[in-house]
Amino acid sequence: MLKERVDELAAIVGSENISAEPLQLEVYSRDPTVIRGTADVVVWPRSVEAVSKIMNFANKTKIPVYPRGAGSSLCGGPVPTRRGIVLSLERMNRILEVDVDNLQFLAEAGVSIREINDRLRPHGLFIPPDPASEVACTIGGCVANNAGGIHAVKYGTFRDWVLGLEVVLPTGEIVSTGTKTRKSVSGYDLTGLITGSEGTLAVITKIRAKMTTLPESQMVTTVYFDSPEDAGRASFSIMIKGLNPSAMELLDETTMGTISRYLTMRLPQAGAMLIIEFDGHRDDVDKKIAAAEVICREEGAVEIKTPATEKESLELWNARKTAFQSLAVLGKTSILIEDVTVPISRIPEMLRRIHEIAQRHGILVPTFGHVGDGNLHPHVLYDEENKEEYEKAMAATDDIFRTAVELGGTISGEHGIGVLKRKYFALEHSQLETEVMKRIKKLFDPNNILNPHKIFPEEE
Amino acid sequence: MLKERVDELAAIVGSENISAEPLQLEVYSRDPTVIRGTADVVVWPRSVEAVSKIMNFANKTKIPVYPRGAGSSLCGGPVPTRRGIVLSLERMNRILEVDVDNLQFLAEAGVSIREINDRLRPHGLFIPPDPASEVACTIGGCVANNAGGIHAVKYGTFRDWVLGLEVVLPTGEIVSTGTKTRKSVSGYDLTGLITGSEGTLAVITKIRAKMTTLPESQMVTTVYFDSPEDAGRASFSIMIKGLNPSAMELLDETTMGTISRYLTMRLPQAGAMLIIEFDGHRDDVDKKIAAAEVICREEGAVEIKTPATEKESLELWNARKTAFQSLAVLGKTSILIEDVTVPISRIPEMLRRIHEIAQRHGILVPTFGHVGDGNLHPHVLYDEENKEEYEKAMAATDDIFRTAVELGGTISGEHGIGVLKRKYFALEHSQLETEVMKRIKKLFDPNNILNPHKIFPEEE
Repeated sequence: MLKERVDELAAIVGSENISAEPLQLEVYSRDPTVIRGTADVVVWPRSVEAVSKIMNFANKTKIPVYPRGAGSSLCGGPVPTRRGIVLSLERMNRILEVDVDNLQFLAEAGVSIREINDRLRPHGLFIPPDPASEVACTIGGCVANNAGGIHAVKYGTFRDWVLGLEVVLPTGEIVSTGTKTRKSVSGYDLTGLITGSEGTLAVITKIRAKMTTLPESQMVTTVYFDSPEDAGRASFSIMIKGLNPSAMELLDETTMGTISRYLTMRLPQAGAMLIIEFDGHRDDVDKKIAAAEVICREEGAVEIKTPATEKESLELWNARKTAFQSLAVLGKTSILIEDVTVPISRIPEMLRRIHEIAQRHGILVPTFGHVGDGNLHPHVLYDEENKEEYEKAMAATDDIFRTAVELGGTISGEHGIGVLKRKYFALEHSQLETEVMKRIKKLFDPNNILNPHKIFPEEE
Repeated sequence: MLKERVDELAAIVGSENISAEPLQLEVYSRDPTVIRGTADVVVWPRSVEAVSKIMNFANKTKIPVYPRGAGSSLCGGPVPTRRGIVLSLERMNRILEVDVDNLQFLAEAGVSIREINDRLRPHGLFIPPDPASEVACTIGGCVANNAGGIHAVKYGTFRDWVLGLEVVLPTGEIVSTGTKTRKSVSGYDLTGLITGSEGTLAVITKIRAKMTTLPESQMVTTVYFDSPEDAGRASFSIMIKGLNPSAMELLDETTMGTISRYLTMRLPQAGAMLIIEFDGHRDDVDKKIAAAEVICREEGAVEIKTPATEKESLELWNARKTAFQSLAVLGKTSILIEDVTVPISRIPEMLRRIHEIAQRHGILVPTFGHVGDGNLHPHVLYDEENKEEYEKAMAATDDIFRTAVELGGTISGEHGIGVLKRKYFALEHSQLETEVMKRIKKLFDPNNILNPHKIFPEEE
């Protein structure tokens, strides 16, 4: 980008809110995936007016803009693949209002989920969706990607919690959408359209979202099975019987092994485990734990361990949270994390087929995930330097996506499409459905300057 | 419409599925409101292909098409205000799939909510949103209007239950949207965009929706107060304390009186009553009823009556359901039913101001509604023949909408905008937000032939 362009941007945001330092550009040109881009400049606007001016400038000069929260996307979502401006929302990080009386808050896009929940907790309130990255990930990024997490099985995703947005359109126009009420049918649901659009339709600057009362109690049990299929069947039965767990996580044998080594923690020898959590009134929780255990035994549980103390429960959740990092003990340089999601009755078959795919290609695909809502995270492991292994990993990934769609599933339950899954988009969506979406993209962003070349299959 | 046009339509749908009989046209030119239109012809297509051909025909000939479910809209939504074709979905009325394993069903647009729930009940399942017209209203209409009902306070509106749609665009293109999974972030949420768009973006032909397990038990209590404001404060306290009632209805003194006369039922003398329902496990329900009663006493309840039997509970709900019809005893010819919705903390003030508005204009505005989610139904009564009273009714309606928006509310919580509320749309939405919505309308419907001249303020 020309120096005078950078100067124009500096005049908008102030020289302390812009950088073209190589190290900064390097950091802001990636996310945790293998996708790499090239940022020309990073800006940290501090107001919606500044964001509007940046979009105006970009729209006139046709320079791409890549909005970015914490950069913890798992699909290359915010990566500046075609050069241009990285627009970081990190400095728009104020919680503007906590309206306890109406169970809602208003926050700028750059506030982390952790910070919001820290602020709500003293009121006995919280916003439930909690991506694994909740300590860092921003509410703007979460809404842009309609993020989920372990509690989505009971509480839904961010889409279920957003009431309204302040956004800046690619043309620089500032629009407020949505409502402060618990329900409304007044015009088109622009809030919902922009939620989950991965920063391709508008830059989200403020979010009004619902919050709810913290549950009186939470209780966890762990159940061990001979095989992931058995665990999958048990989780399906728990869901179908309406027990409504607040979390239900599956870990396969490989992942249990890596966690054991990584945390030097002793997990029983088994083919798979479920971590099942219920929340609510204490009596109700106790009853549900008991009912879930009965179901698990019917489905072939070989061992059930209920943590005796809250400390033990926390250790378990900590173990689940380190599942990803623990895969490092397998010594592979690279990981493709998928988030295929299938209708809940197909979970046992999906697990079986992931195992088959891994065996057929002779690679490791440790799998864990939010099995209660049909969402699995197969982790395809490979060494970047080993070309043959890389090819196998790609082929296995292909097979996993095809299988998920064949079973009536989606290629992304909670991470989004970004760059990584663009080539699989047509597996799930008809040409006409895709065309309608692209028409909407063009309507919002006629010059294709806002997070361009994401989501939809490449045409070039 | 020219006879040859009608013949072309007959060739598409078959002569048994089309009518231009004056009596039929009269019926299909209205809904329960005062809004009247003029249908040229009514068609009852039996397949999505027929709907596609109709839209294709209409798009070429530029004849407006008005999609219609049961016609129970309360805002003129399906009324053919500009002549043209009424497209009734009544004969697309099959439940195509009940997938108990995945807690979802697939139905054509013309099936009634009652029929769906009758079909799900033997499986111990249901779809919770239940508009007062559930015996007749169709799932297509409910999704098009994002309908609510008394259980929305706990279970949300149709938006929260729809997984995917088959729709026909104004151009005749057939598009499938959405997913069979409990969560998905894969492209733009076209399902959500079309939900609540009041039949202006696409004709909904099939709906895939979630269902859930029937609660183990349901229990109701009735609480009487000196004033609607006291009742409003109690309902607010119940919500804010997270008791999560499955229904919470307020009836004001006038409505209590009309019900008593209409049903010759004895309700205690009071300024307002709440009907509060909890559902779930029996123990939990009992505890919540007790907790709600404590709160109500703190807020000034003068009497609490818990029905002793299920029969008594049903009688109560029946009384609530006849609230609208019971207004007939007041002897007015016409009723404007509003569905203003405010943030829950503003309910007491909204109730007070509705009362003031009624007094100021010297007319009757009996008010009841789903107070738990801030949704009130003030019923503005007048005699059609009495011009002065009509003017007062219009002025009071105006004041009610302005007050709701002033208190941070919406002009429609669950009925939609249709024709009746178009002129208030600008109270709630900025010019730019409206402009973005209209651009979307134009994108989907370039010739403005699908339910034209609804929702947005009139320009002519």
